[in-house]
Amino acid sequence: MDDVIAQIRQFRDERDWKQFHDPKSLAVSISIEAAELLEHFQWIDKAQSAQHAAENREEIADEIADVAIYLIELADVTGIDLKSAILAKLKKNAVKYPVEKSRGKITKYTKL
Amino acid sequence: MDDVIAQIRQFRDERDWKQFHDPKSLAVSISIEAAELLEHFQWIDKAQSAQHAAENREEIADEIADVAIYLIELADVTGIDLKSAILAKLKKNAVKYPVEKSRGKITKYTKL
Amino acid sequence: MDDVIAQIRQFRDERDWKQFHDPKSLAVSISIEAAELLEHFQWIDKAQSAQHAAENREEIADEIADVAIYLIELADVTGIDLKSAILAKLKKNAVKYPVEKSRGKITKYTKL
Amino acid sequence: MDDVIAQIRQFRDERDWKQFHDPKSLAVSISIEAAELLEHFQWIDKAQSAQHAAENREEIADEIADVAIYLIELADVTGIDLKSAILAKLKKNAVKYPVEKSRGKITKYTKL
Repeated sequence: MDDVIAQIRQFRDERDWKQFHDPKSLAVSISIEAAELLEHFQWIDKAQSAQHAAENREEIADEIADVAIYLIELADVTGIDLKSAILAKLKKNAVKYPVEKSRGKITKYTKL
Repeated sequence: MDDVIAQIRQFRDERDWKQFHDPKSLAVSISIEAAELLEHFQWIDKAQSAQHAAENREEIADEIADVAIYLIELADVTGIDLKSAILAKLKKNAVKYPVEKSRGKITKYTKL
Repeated sequence: MDDVIAQIRQFRDERDWKQFHDPKSLAVSISIEAAELLEHFQWIDKAQSAQHAAENREEIADEIADVAIYLIELADVTGIDLKSAILAKLKKNAVKYPVEKSRGKITKYTKL
Repeated sequence: MDDVIAQIRQFRDERDWKQFHDPKSLAVSISIEAAELLEHFQWIDKAQSAQHAAENREEIADEIADVAIYLIELADVTGIDLKSAILAKLKKNAVKYPVEKSRGKITKYTKL
Protein backbone atom coordinates (compact mmCIF):
# COMPACT_ATOMS: atom_id res chain seq x y z
CA MET A 1 0.00 0.00 0.00
CA ASP A 2 2.99 2.29 0.52
CA ASP A 3 3.46 2.95 -3.19
CA VAL A 4 -0.26 3.77 -3.52
CA ILE A 5 0.09 6.30 -0.72
CA ALA A 6 3.19 7.68 -2.43
CA GLN A 7 1.31 8.09 -5.71
CA ILE A 8 -1.61 9.81 -4.00
CA ARG A 9 0.81 12.24 -2.36
CA GLN A 10 2.56 12.87 -5.65
CA PHE A 11 -0.75 13.55 -7.41
CA ARG A 12 -1.70 16.02 -4.68
CA ASP A 13 1.65 17.75 -4.50
CA GLU A 14 2.09 18.16 -8.27
CA ARG A 15 -1.13 20.18 -8.15
CA ASP A 16 -0.17 22.02 -4.97
CA TRP A 17 -3.40 20.84 -3.36
CA LYS A 18 -2.12 20.09 0.11
CA GLN A 19 -3.12 23.62 1.08
CA PHE A 20 -6.79 22.58 0.67
CA HIS A 21 -6.39 19.34 2.59
CA ASP A 22 -7.09 20.32 6.15
CA PRO A 23 -8.71 17.45 8.11
CA LYS A 24 -12.21 18.97 8.08
CA SER A 25 -12.27 19.47 4.31
CA LEU A 26 -11.18 15.86 3.83
CA ALA A 27 -13.79 14.57 6.29
CA VAL A 28 -16.45 16.54 4.40
CA SER A 29 -15.15 15.11 1.12
CA ILE A 30 -15.28 11.54 2.44
CA SER A 31 -18.96 12.01 3.32
CA ILE A 32 -19.73 13.44 -0.11
CA GLU A 33 -17.98 10.59 -1.93
CA ALA A 34 -19.58 8.00 0.35
CA ALA A 35 -22.97 9.38 -0.70
CA GLU A 36 -22.02 9.12 -4.38
CA LEU A 37 -21.12 5.49 -3.78
CA LEU A 38 -24.43 4.98 -1.98
CA GLU A 39 -26.30 6.59 -4.90
CA HIS A 40 -25.50 3.51 -6.99
CA PHE A 41 -27.66 1.50 -4.61
CA GLN A 42 -30.34 4.14 -3.97
CA TRP A 43 -33.39 2.22 -5.20
CA ILE A 44 -31.88 -1.27 -5.23
CA ASP A 45 -32.82 -4.10 -2.89
CA LYS A 46 -30.09 -5.55 -0.70
CA ALA A 47 -30.73 -8.90 -2.35
CA GLN A 48 -30.16 -7.43 -5.84
CA SER A 49 -27.13 -5.42 -4.86
CA ALA A 50 -24.45 -8.03 -5.56
CA GLN A 51 -25.68 -8.44 -9.12
CA HIS A 52 -26.06 -4.69 -9.49
CA ALA A 53 -22.47 -4.19 -8.30
CA ALA A 54 -21.24 -6.78 -10.79
CA GLU A 55 -23.05 -5.01 -13.65
CA ASN A 56 -21.68 -1.59 -12.65
CA ARG A 57 -18.30 -2.74 -11.54
CA GLU A 58 -16.14 0.03 -12.97
CA GLU A 59 -18.33 2.89 -11.77
CA ILE A 60 -18.54 1.39 -8.31
CA ALA A 61 -14.79 0.73 -8.23
CA ASP A 62 -14.30 4.42 -9.07
CA GLU A 63 -16.53 5.53 -6.22
CA ILE A 64 -14.81 3.17 -3.77
CA ALA A 65 -11.49 4.62 -4.93
CA ASP A 66 -12.72 8.20 -4.38
CA VAL A 67 -13.59 7.42 -0.77
CA ALA A 68 -10.31 5.53 -0.30
CA ILE A 69 -8.19 8.35 -1.73
CA TYR A 70 -9.68 10.98 0.57
CA LEU A 71 -9.39 8.58 3.50
CA ILE A 72 -5.70 7.99 2.77
CA GLU A 73 -5.18 11.73 2.41
CA LEU A 74 -6.89 12.36 5.75
CA ALA A 75 -4.72 9.73 7.44
CA ASP A 76 -1.71 11.34 5.80
CA VAL A 77 -2.33 14.90 6.98
CA THR A 78 -3.26 13.80 10.50
CA GLY A 79 -0.24 11.53 10.81
CA ILE A 80 -2.43 8.48 11.40
CA ASP A 81 -1.06 5.19 10.11
CA LEU A 82 -4.05 3.63 8.38
CA LYS A 83 -2.92 0.05 8.85
CA SER A 84 -2.25 0.49 12.58
CA ALA A 85 -5.57 2.33 12.99
CA ILE A 86 -7.44 -0.57 11.38
CA LEU A 87 -5.69 -3.20 13.46
CA ALA A 88 -6.28 -1.22 16.68
CA LYS A 89 -9.97 -0.86 15.81
CA LEU A 90 -10.32 -4.57 15.05
CA LYS A 91 -9.01 -5.30 18.54
CA LYS A 92 -11.56 -2.97 20.12
CA ASN A 93 -14.31 -4.49 18.01
CA ALA A 94 -13.26 -7.98 19.09
CA VAL A 95 -13.84 -6.95 22.71
CA LYS A 96 -17.14 -5.25 21.88
CA TYR A 97 -18.42 -8.15 19.80
CA PRO A 98 -17.20 -11.40 21.35
CA VAL A 99 -17.40 -14.28 18.89
CA GLU A 100 -19.80 -16.38 20.97
CA LYS A 101 -22.32 -13.60 21.52
CA SER A 102 -22.10 -12.07 18.06
CA ARG A 103 -22.16 -15.09 15.79
CA GLY A 104 -24.79 -14.69 13.12
CA LYS A 105 -26.32 -11.64 14.81
CA ILE A 106 -26.26 -8.03 13.79
CA THR A 107 -28.16 -5.22 15.45
CA LYS A 108 -28.58 -1.48 15.06
CA TYR A 109 -25.75 -1.06 17.52
CA THR A 110 -23.37 -3.39 15.77
CA LYS A 111 -20.63 -1.46 14.07
CA LEU A 112 -18.52 -3.33 11.49
CA MET B 1 -2.23 -4.41 3.32
CA ASP B 2 -2.91 -8.05 2.50
CA ASP B 3 -2.63 -9.17 6.10
CA VAL B 4 -4.99 -6.38 7.17
CA ILE B 5 -7.54 -7.61 4.64
CA ALA B 6 -7.00 -11.15 5.90
CA GLN B 7 -7.63 -10.06 9.49
CA ILE B 8 -10.80 -8.18 8.53
CA ARG B 9 -12.08 -11.27 6.73
CA GLN B 10 -11.23 -13.46 9.72
CA PHE B 11 -13.04 -11.09 12.09
CA ARG B 12 -16.11 -11.16 9.85
CA ASP B 13 -16.10 -14.91 9.27
CA GLU B 14 -15.59 -15.89 12.92
CA ARG B 15 -18.85 -14.04 13.58
CA ASP B 16 -20.57 -15.44 10.49
CA TRP B 17 -21.32 -11.90 9.38
CA LYS B 18 -20.69 -12.27 5.66
CA GLN B 19 -24.40 -13.01 5.26
CA PHE B 20 -25.11 -9.36 6.21
CA HIS B 21 -22.46 -7.93 3.93
CA ASP B 22 -24.26 -7.40 0.67
CA PRO B 23 -22.85 -4.41 -1.26
CA LYS B 24 -25.77 -2.11 -0.47
CA SER B 25 -25.57 -2.69 3.28
CA LEU B 26 -21.86 -1.95 3.19
CA ALA B 27 -22.37 1.20 1.11
CA VAL B 28 -24.97 2.37 3.64
CA SER B 29 -22.56 1.58 6.47
CA ILE B 30 -19.74 3.55 4.82
CA SER B 31 -22.00 6.63 4.66
CA ILE B 32 -23.00 6.23 8.30
CA GLU B 33 -19.39 5.90 9.47
CA ALA B 34 -18.28 8.78 7.24
CA ALA B 35 -20.85 10.96 9.02
CA GLU B 36 -19.55 9.87 12.42
CA LEU B 37 -16.08 10.90 11.30
CA LEU B 38 -17.48 14.22 10.08
CA GLU B 39 -19.23 14.75 13.42
CA HIS B 40 -15.82 15.31 15.01
CA PHE B 41 -15.48 18.42 12.85
CA GLN B 42 -19.14 19.54 12.98
CA TRP B 43 -18.64 23.00 14.51
CA ILE B 44 -14.90 23.36 13.92
CA ASP B 45 -13.30 25.80 11.52
CA LYS B 46 -11.15 24.36 8.72
CA ALA B 47 -8.26 26.35 10.12
CA GLN B 48 -8.66 24.77 13.57
CA SER B 49 -9.18 21.27 12.29
CA ALA B 50 -5.54 20.12 12.23
CA GLN B 51 -5.13 21.02 15.89
CA HIS B 52 -8.51 19.49 16.70
CA ALA B 53 -7.49 16.26 14.95
CA ALA B 54 -4.22 16.19 16.90
CA GLU B 55 -6.10 16.59 20.20
CA ASN B 56 -8.63 13.87 19.35
CA ARG B 57 -6.24 11.60 17.54
CA GLU B 58 -7.42 8.23 18.85
CA GLU B 59 -11.13 8.89 18.35
CA ILE B 60 -10.54 10.16 14.84
CA ALA B 61 -8.24 7.22 14.03
CA ASP B 62 -11.06 4.92 15.15
CA GLU B 63 -13.57 6.63 12.87
CA ILE B 64 -11.15 6.53 9.93
CA ALA B 65 -10.68 2.83 10.62
CA ASP B 66 -14.44 2.22 10.69
CA VAL B 67 -14.81 3.73 7.22
CA ALA B 68 -11.75 1.84 5.98
CA ILE B 69 -12.96 -1.51 7.31
CA TYR B 70 -16.34 -1.24 5.60
CA LEU B 71 -14.63 -0.03 2.43
CA ILE B 72 -12.29 -3.03 2.43
CA GLU B 73 -15.24 -5.33 3.09
CA LEU B 74 -17.17 -3.79 0.19
CA ALA B 75 -14.19 -4.21 -2.13
CA ASP B 76 -13.90 -7.79 -0.88
CA VAL B 77 -17.49 -8.85 -1.56
CA THR B 78 -17.60 -7.14 -4.96
CA GLY B 79 -14.28 -8.64 -6.03
CA ILE B 80 -12.75 -5.21 -6.54
CA ASP B 81 -9.02 -4.93 -5.87
CA LEU B 82 -8.73 -1.76 -3.81
CA LYS B 83 -5.19 -0.97 -4.86
CA SER B 84 -5.92 -1.37 -8.58
CA ALA B 85 -9.12 0.67 -8.20
CA ILE B 86 -7.19 3.53 -6.59
CA LEU B 87 -4.46 3.49 -9.23
CA ALA B 88 -7.01 3.39 -12.05
CA LYS B 89 -8.88 6.33 -10.51
CA LEU B 90 -5.69 8.35 -10.09
CA LYS B 91 -5.07 7.93 -13.83
CA LYS B 92 -8.56 9.18 -14.66
CA ASN B 93 -8.13 12.08 -12.28
CA ALA B 94 -4.80 12.97 -13.89
CA VAL B 95 -6.61 13.35 -17.23
CA LYS B 96 -9.47 15.31 -15.65
CA TYR B 97 -7.18 17.60 -13.70
CA PRO B 98 -4.04 18.26 -15.77
CA VAL B 99 -1.21 19.58 -13.63
CA GLU B 100 -0.87 22.89 -15.48
CA LYS B 101 -4.56 23.79 -15.27
CA SER B 102 -5.16 22.51 -11.77
CA ARG B 103 -2.17 23.78 -9.86
CA GLY B 104 -3.25 25.60 -6.72
CA LYS B 105 -6.90 25.63 -7.78
CA ILE B 106 -9.83 23.73 -6.42
CA THR B 107 -13.46 24.17 -7.43
CA LYS B 108 -16.80 22.70 -6.56
CA TYR B 109 -16.33 20.25 -9.38
CA THR B 110 -12.90 19.14 -8.36
CA LYS B 111 -12.98 15.64 -6.97
CA LEU B 112 -9.90 14.50 -5.02
CA MET C 1 -45.45 26.01 9.64
CA ASP C 2 -44.76 29.65 10.53
CA ASP C 3 -45.17 29.07 14.26
CA VAL C 4 -42.82 26.07 14.06
CA ILE C 5 -40.20 28.27 12.42
CA ALA C 6 -40.80 30.91 15.09
CA GLN C 7 -40.28 28.33 17.84
CA ILE C 8 -37.08 27.04 16.26
CA ARG C 9 -35.76 30.60 16.06
CA GLN C 10 -36.71 31.25 19.68
CA PHE C 11 -34.97 28.06 20.83
CA ARG C 12 -31.83 29.11 18.95
CA ASP C 13 -31.84 32.71 20.06
CA GLU C 14 -32.49 31.98 23.76
CA ARG C 15 -29.24 30.02 23.65
CA ASP C 16 -27.42 32.60 21.54
CA TRP C 17 -26.61 29.89 19.00
CA LYS C 18 -27.13 31.89 15.82
CA GLN C 19 -23.42 32.70 15.91
CA PHE C 20 -22.71 28.99 15.17
CA HIS C 21 -25.29 28.74 12.40
CA ASP C 22 -23.37 29.71 9.32
CA PRO C 23 -24.69 27.88 6.22
CA LYS C 24 -21.76 25.44 6.02
CA SER C 25 -22.09 24.30 9.62
CA LEU C 26 -25.81 23.73 9.09
CA ALA C 27 -25.20 21.80 5.86
CA VAL C 28 -22.67 19.62 7.70
CA SER C 29 -25.19 19.10 10.49
CA ILE C 30 -27.94 18.08 8.06
CA SER C 31 -25.64 15.38 6.64
CA ILE C 32 -24.78 14.11 10.11
CA GLU C 33 -28.41 13.92 11.18
CA ALA C 34 -29.43 12.33 7.88
CA ALA C 35 -26.90 9.58 8.59
CA GLU C 36 -28.34 9.06 12.07
CA LEU C 37 -31.75 8.65 10.50
CA LEU C 38 -30.29 6.20 7.99
CA GLU C 39 -28.66 4.23 10.80
CA HIS C 40 -32.11 3.05 11.86
CA PHE C 41 -32.35 1.22 8.55
CA GLN C 42 -28.70 0.12 8.30
CA TRP C 43 -29.21 -3.65 8.12
CA ILE C 44 -32.92 -3.67 7.31
CA ASP C 45 -34.43 -4.78 4.03
CA LYS C 46 -36.48 -2.24 2.09
CA ALA C 47 -39.41 -4.62 2.36
CA GLN C 48 -39.14 -4.74 6.16
CA SER C 49 -38.61 -1.04 6.57
CA ALA C 50 -42.24 0.05 6.90
CA GLN C 51 -42.76 -2.37 9.78
CA HIS C 52 -39.44 -1.39 11.30
CA ALA C 53 -40.41 2.29 11.12
CA ALA C 54 -43.75 1.53 12.80
CA GLU C 55 -41.97 -0.30 15.64
CA ASN C 56 -39.44 2.50 16.15
CA ARG C 57 -41.79 5.35 15.45
CA GLU C 58 -40.69 7.78 18.15
CA GLU C 59 -36.96 7.39 17.54
CA ILE C 60 -37.43 7.80 13.82
CA ALA C 61 -39.73 10.82 14.32
CA ASP C 62 -36.94 12.36 16.44
CA GLU C 63 -34.35 11.82 13.71
CA ILE C 64 -36.66 13.22 11.03
CA ALA C 65 -37.19 16.24 13.28
CA ASP C 66 -33.43 16.72 13.72
CA VAL C 67 -32.93 16.90 9.96
CA ALA C 68 -35.97 19.16 9.58
CA ILE C 69 -34.83 21.58 12.29
CA TYR C 70 -31.39 22.06 10.75
CA LEU C 71 -32.98 22.39 7.32
CA ILE C 72 -35.34 25.10 8.57
CA GLU C 73 -32.44 26.84 10.27
CA LEU C 74 -30.41 26.73 7.06
CA ALA C 75 -33.30 28.16 5.06
CA ASP C 76 -33.67 30.83 7.74
CA VAL C 77 -30.06 32.04 7.73
CA THR C 78 -29.83 32.00 3.93
CA GLY C 79 -33.13 33.85 3.53
CA ILE C 80 -34.61 31.00 1.49
CA ASP C 81 -38.36 30.49 1.84
CA LEU C 82 -38.68 26.75 2.29
CA LYS C 83 -42.20 26.51 0.87
CA SER C 84 -41.33 28.52 -2.26
CA ALA C 85 -38.14 26.49 -2.72
CA ILE C 86 -40.10 23.22 -2.59
CA LEU C 87 -42.74 24.44 -5.03
CA ALA C 88 -40.09 25.77 -7.44
CA LYS C 89 -38.26 22.44 -7.30
CA LEU C 90 -41.46 20.46 -7.91
CA LYS C 91 -41.96 22.49 -11.10
CA LYS C 92 -38.43 21.70 -12.29
CA ASN C 93 -38.92 18.05 -11.43
CA ALA C 94 -42.18 17.99 -13.38
CA VAL C 95 -40.26 19.10 -16.48
CA LYS C 96 -37.46 16.63 -15.83
CA TYR C 97 -39.80 13.72 -15.17
CA PRO C 98 -42.84 14.06 -17.41
CA VAL C 99 -45.75 11.96 -16.18
CA GLU C 100 -46.01 9.81 -19.30
CA LYS C 101 -42.33 8.87 -19.39
CA SER C 102 -41.85 8.49 -15.67
CA ARG C 103 -44.90 6.53 -14.60
CA GLY C 104 -43.89 3.51 -12.56
CA LYS C 105 -40.22 3.91 -13.41
CA ILE C 106 -37.34 5.00 -11.26
CA THR C 107 -33.69 5.02 -12.25
CA LYS C 108 -30.37 5.92 -10.74
CA TYR C 109 -30.78 9.37 -12.19
CA THR C 110 -34.27 9.93 -10.88
CA LYS C 111 -34.28 12.44 -8.07
CA LEU C 112 -37.41 12.64 -5.92
CA MET D 1 -47.51 23.56 4.62
CA ASP D 2 -50.53 21.31 4.00
CA ASP D 3 -50.84 22.34 0.37
CA VAL D 4 -47.12 21.72 -0.17
CA ILE D 5 -47.54 18.21 1.22
CA ALA D 6 -50.58 17.75 -1.01
CA GLN D 7 -48.59 18.82 -4.09
CA ILE D 8 -45.71 16.49 -3.23
CA ARG D 9 -48.17 13.61 -2.90
CA GLN D 10 -49.81 14.51 -6.19
CA PHE D 11 -46.44 14.65 -7.95
CA ARG D 12 -45.56 11.23 -6.56
CA ASP D 13 -48.91 9.62 -7.27
CA GLU D 14 -49.23 10.92 -10.85
CA ARG D 15 -46.01 9.03 -11.52
CA ASP D 16 -47.05 5.97 -9.51
CA TRP D 17 -43.87 6.30 -7.45
CA LYS D 18 -45.27 5.46 -4.03
CA GLN D 19 -44.28 1.84 -4.71
CA PHE D 20 -40.61 2.93 -4.49
CA HIS D 21 -41.08 5.00 -1.36
CA ASP D 22 -40.49 2.55 1.43
CA PRO D 23 -38.96 4.26 4.50
CA LYS D 24 -35.46 2.86 3.92
CA SER D 25 -35.26 4.08 0.33
CA LEU D 26 -36.37 7.53 1.44
CA ALA D 27 -33.84 7.59 4.30
CA VAL D 28 -31.11 6.63 1.83
CA SER D 29 -32.31 9.37 -0.53
CA ILE D 30 -32.26 11.99 2.25
CA SER D 31 -28.60 11.16 2.95
CA ILE D 32 -27.72 11.37 -0.73
CA GLU D 33 -29.42 14.75 -1.18
CA ALA D 34 -27.91 16.05 2.07
CA ALA D 35 -24.48 15.26 0.64
CA GLU D 36 -25.31 17.12 -2.58
CA LEU D 37 -26.25 20.12 -0.48
CA LEU D 38 -23.00 19.76 1.47
CA GLU D 39 -21.04 19.59 -1.79
CA HIS D 40 -21.79 23.28 -2.34
CA PHE D 41 -19.72 24.02 0.76
CA GLN D 42 -17.04 21.34 0.25
CA TRP D 43 -13.97 23.59 0.11
CA ILE D 44 -15.50 26.73 1.58
CA ASP D 45 -14.66 28.23 4.95
CA LYS D 46 -17.46 28.59 7.48
CA ALA D 47 -16.80 32.31 7.48
CA GLN D 48 -17.24 32.53 3.70
CA SER D 49 -20.29 30.33 3.58
CA ALA D 50 -22.97 33.01 4.01
CA GLN D 51 -21.61 34.94 1.03
CA HIS D 52 -21.20 31.72 -0.95
CA ALA D 53 -24.82 30.79 -0.22
CA ALA D 54 -25.99 34.22 -1.35
CA GLU D 55 -24.08 33.87 -4.63
CA ASN D 56 -25.44 30.37 -5.28
CA ARG D 57 -28.87 30.97 -3.89
CA GLU D 58 -30.96 29.12 -6.48
CA GLU D 59 -28.79 25.99 -6.58
CA ILE D 60 -28.71 25.82 -2.81
CA ALA D 61 -32.47 26.41 -2.57
CA ASP D 62 -32.91 23.47 -4.97
CA GLU D 63 -30.76 21.19 -2.82
CA ILE D 64 -32.57 22.24 0.35
CA ALA D 65 -35.84 21.49 -1.43
CA ASP D 66 -34.60 18.03 -2.48
CA VAL D 67 -33.87 17.12 1.13
CA ALA D 68 -37.17 18.63 2.28
CA ILE D 69 -39.22 16.76 -0.32
CA TYR D 70 -37.79 13.37 0.63
CA LEU D 71 -38.19 14.23 4.30
CA ILE D 72 -41.86 15.12 3.78
CA GLU D 73 -42.35 11.91 1.79
CA LEU D 74 -40.75 9.87 4.57
CA ALA D 75 -42.97 11.50 7.18
CA ASP D 76 -45.92 10.80 4.90
CA VAL D 77 -45.31 7.08 4.41
CA THR D 78 -44.51 6.50 8.07
CA GLY D 79 -47.56 8.44 9.25
CA ILE D 80 -45.41 10.89 11.20
CA ASP D 81 -46.76 14.43 11.46
CA LEU D 82 -43.73 16.57 10.69
CA LYS D 83 -44.91 19.58 12.67
CA SER D 84 -45.69 17.55 15.79
CA ALA D 85 -42.37 15.69 15.46
CA ILE D 86 -40.46 18.98 15.35
CA LEU D 87 -42.31 20.44 18.34
CA ALA D 88 -41.81 17.24 20.36
CA LYS D 89 -38.10 17.27 19.54
CA LEU D 90 -37.74 20.93 20.50
CA LYS D 91 -39.19 20.05 23.92
CA LYS D 92 -36.66 17.24 24.37
CA ASN D 93 -33.85 19.52 23.25
CA ALA D 94 -34.97 22.18 25.72
CA VAL D 95 -34.51 19.66 28.54
CA LYS D 96 -31.17 18.47 27.14
CA TYR D 97 -29.84 21.98 26.61
CA PRO D 98 -31.15 24.22 29.40
CA VAL D 99 -30.87 27.88 28.47
CA GLU D 100 -28.56 28.82 31.34
CA LYS D 101 -26.04 26.05 30.70
CA SER D 102 -26.13 26.21 26.92
CA ARG D 103 -26.02 29.93 26.21
CA GLY D 104 -23.29 30.73 23.72
CA LYS D 105 -21.80 27.23 23.93
CA ILE D 106 -21.79 24.44 21.43
CA THR D 107 -19.93 21.15 21.73
CA LYS D 108 -19.48 17.99 19.75
CA TYR D 109 -22.38 16.52 21.66
CA THR D 110 -24.71 19.42 21.05
CA LYS D 111 -27.39 18.48 18.57
CA LEU D 112 -29.46 21.31 17.06
